[in-house]
Amino acid sequence: MRGVFLAIGDELVAGRVANTTSFWAAGLLSRRGYRLLEIVTVPDDREAIVFHLRRLFPQTDFLIASGGLGPTEDDLTSESVAEALGLRLVVHKGILARIRENEKAQGLPVNTLRDRMAHLPEGACPLSEDFTAAGYLLEHQGKPLFFLPGVPSQFRELFEKKVLPYLEEKFPPKETVFTRTLRFFDLREAEINRAVKKILGEGLEVGFYPVFPEVQLTLTARGKDEGEVRRRVLEAAARLQTHFPEHLFGEDQEELAAVLGRILVERGYSLSVAESCTGGLIASLITRIPGSSEYFIGGAVTYANWAKREVLGVPERFLRLFGAVSREVALAMASGARKRFSTTFALSVTGIAGPGGGTPEKPVGTVWLGLSTPTETVARKFLFPGSRHEIQTLAAFTALDWLRRYLLTGNLFPAYRFAVEGD
Amino acid sequence: MRGVFLAIGDELVAGRVANTTSFWAAGLLSRRGYRLLEIVTVPDDREAIVFHLRRLFPQTDFLIASGGLGPTEDDLTSESVAEALGLRLVVHKGILARIRENEKAQGLPVNTLRDRMAHLPEGACPLSEDFTAAGYLLEHQGKPLFFLPGVPSQFRELFEKKVLPYLEEKFPPKETVFTRTLRFFDLREAEINRAVKKILGEGLEVGFYPVFPEVQLTLTARGKDEGEVRRRVLEAAARLQTHFPEHLFGEDQEELAAVLGRILVERGYSLSVAESCTGGLIASLITRIPGSSEYFIGGAVTYANWAKREVLGVPERFLRLFGAVSREVALAMASGARKRFSTTFALSVTGIAGPGGGTPEKPVGTVWLGLSTPTETVARKFLFPGSRHEIQTLAAFTALDWLRRYLLTGNLFPAYRFAVEGD
Repeated sequence: MRGVFLAIGDELVAGRVANTTSFWAAGLLSRRGYRLLEIVTVPDDREAIVFHLRRLFPQTDFLIASGGLGPTEDDLTSESVAEALGLRLVVHKGILARIRENEKAQGLPVNTLRDRMAHLPEGACPLSEDFTAAGYLLEHQGKPLFFLPGVPSQFRELFEKKVLPYLEEKFPPKETVFTRTLRFFDLREAEINRAVKKILGEGLEVGFYPVFPEVQLTLTARGKDEGEVRRRVLEAAARLQTHFPEHLFGEDQEELAAVLGRILVERGYSLSVAESCTGGLIASLITRIPGSSEYFIGGAVTYANWAKREVLGVPERFLRLFGAVSREVALAMASGARKRFSTTFALSVTGIAGPGGGTPEKPVGTVWLGLSTPTETVARKFLFPGSRHEIQTLAAFTALDWLRRYLLTGNLFPAYRFAVEGD
Repeated sequence: MRGVFLAIGDELVAGRVANTTSFWAAGLLSRRGYRLLEIVTVPDDREAIVFHLRRLFPQTDFLIASGGLGPTEDDLTSESVAEALGLRLVVHKGILARIRENEKAQGLPVNTLRDRMAHLPEGACPLSEDFTAAGYLLEHQGKPLFFLPGVPSQFRELFEKKVLPYLEEKFPPKETVFTRTLRFFDLREAEINRAVKKILGEGLEVGFYPVFPEVQLTLTARGKDEGEVRRRVLEAAARLQTHFPEHLFGEDQEELAAVLGRILVERGYSLSVAESCTGGLIASLITRIPGSSEYFIGGAVTYANWAKREVLGVPERFLRLFGAVSREVALAMASGARKRFSTTFALSVTGIAGPGGGTPEKPVGTVWLGLSTPTETVARKFLFPGSRHEIQTLAAFTALDWLRRYLLTGNLFPAYRFAVEGD
């Protein structure tokens, strides 16, 4: 079953409000097996609304529209619907009575401008039984057309309580849809795509989306047999997992920090961090995960040099001889944190996130990461690209991922795109 | 001048990603006096892309498209453009050379699948001089058509650096549009709106956007006389600043942490933080701001109780008698951080972000914030609503805002919506 979404509002095309409601609805529809052909956003303009309604009506099985149902002059949806479909506007007595009651209850004078909201295309059926929210269903030539208010909370309530149940009754999903999202770190879309082509069979829809700094891949299958549909997706996911045993770190809602946390908990390990240029971002990523207190003991954000000395015991002469952004300081920070917080592992970061502070030998993006384990402490140099925030994010994700990959493989030096070796 | 926006991507119509980039671009265009006729979102579907390109081309002065420029099979934008406009696809030698160079630099084998990205409609002119981002301008029958990558960061950079300057040169704005964004913390939209209605005159467009946990308000004026247009907006902004001297914390791109940082630098003060339930988020918000090393010395993320003791010197008996989430521990953390890092001020947070860990006396959302100044150390209790991440974010923003308001007014106990007084 194919639908279209028509979002109506001057505030949307002017970018004063981001129309996230349409994408929220698109997600719900898609997960139930309904496909949207397009999402069109137009201003409160009668000609535009009429044009798109006429164009979309023959192509679609159902239509969902939002906005333009209020009492003001620029609310033009109902009259545009009437014009587009050749219908009269008729007064809905229940809505009109409700308008008068509201005026009375609020001690307002009768204002017939509000009556506009009671003028609906003939055959329209209000979706809110007590008429507290605007919005109606119009069945035209057997096709359901839903007109919902633009206010997100009202839209969402009517969409979930009225639109979805109606669609599921009228168009019972003919097929099962099953989607799995696979999450990759430190791989390019193109590299993943090459593998996808080689190892995935037919009958799967593949979608890529970069969600910085990850790449996320969705595998979707459709079909009549639920078990078979799930099997197709899960088998493909397993093949990709085998192909990318280290880079495919998680599925669906699993954050990188949550995957690392799960491994730490399973093995009874604990973790601390020592951060300079990431400034608390690693600790923050870890502690966003519920239950992180099981393995995360604490962290030191040592932005000033003397904080590195005072809190982590980094020797003064290291800072003087090698500078704060150096192998020696990264090593001392990692082992200092591991000692201070008495943890199994510690991660450290010291680098130049910019925009200032770069030099020819240590340009912006130069970052040393340190990892201290019960048996050794090592450090690696990276050169991350991008803005200050991107460099901080890449450094934080790489640190978490480094420990995750070490715990998976025992290899202390897994390959990374932005690693600078031999330094 | 009228434009159209065509957003291309399966992930968009399937609602896996909200296409906020188009609304961001729409806002920038609108504030410069360009109008968007519509924003159309379609899947990676050749027929749909061709249809809309052909339909939109005659109506519009310019077109901006996003997405579908990657190296994978489902990236169909360039071939659809060629078909829609009757152009050949030609290989762009510079881009091809860049692809081969990248492969070499990264030690990758030659992969001709990547060559797709070098196939552009004839006449297309890449927007990135060094070809690091996809995206090109195609001038067709005198009309500029921009095709930009769907990756938000790349889209935004090219849009601001290439598309807007081009449009402003080719279609000089006939009127001046001036917009200022005012940023509020700890006020509801309805409260701001009541004041806006009372104190703002005619001739201003007002837009509200909640950007959690802030409310942002835009004031826009249009007209021929640039000075007069600016004056109208700035006078209105000044009236709102007078009306909300504490809650209106910044303008345009100014983050809360940047505003606080500016005040600290001006007065030569320094800051440290001690975080438990916010887990590094406050430090991270501070250190996202370039130049924060001028005033931020460091922070301790003391997630485990004994880390509070070990790093911050919180007395064992406080933890035993009052629990980690208590006035006494918040006070000890703040004064401990201030001492440890030798800073003018220190902020502390200890609380229950959930979803687990709540009790009848200390439900999820209970957070103690501490502030240590050169003359005293105080703590306040809050009860924040929402998810784990929302509670962490509200706690972190409130801590930063508390110090900002204290520095502005000298009042150690400004009112907050979620403060629990008398505890």
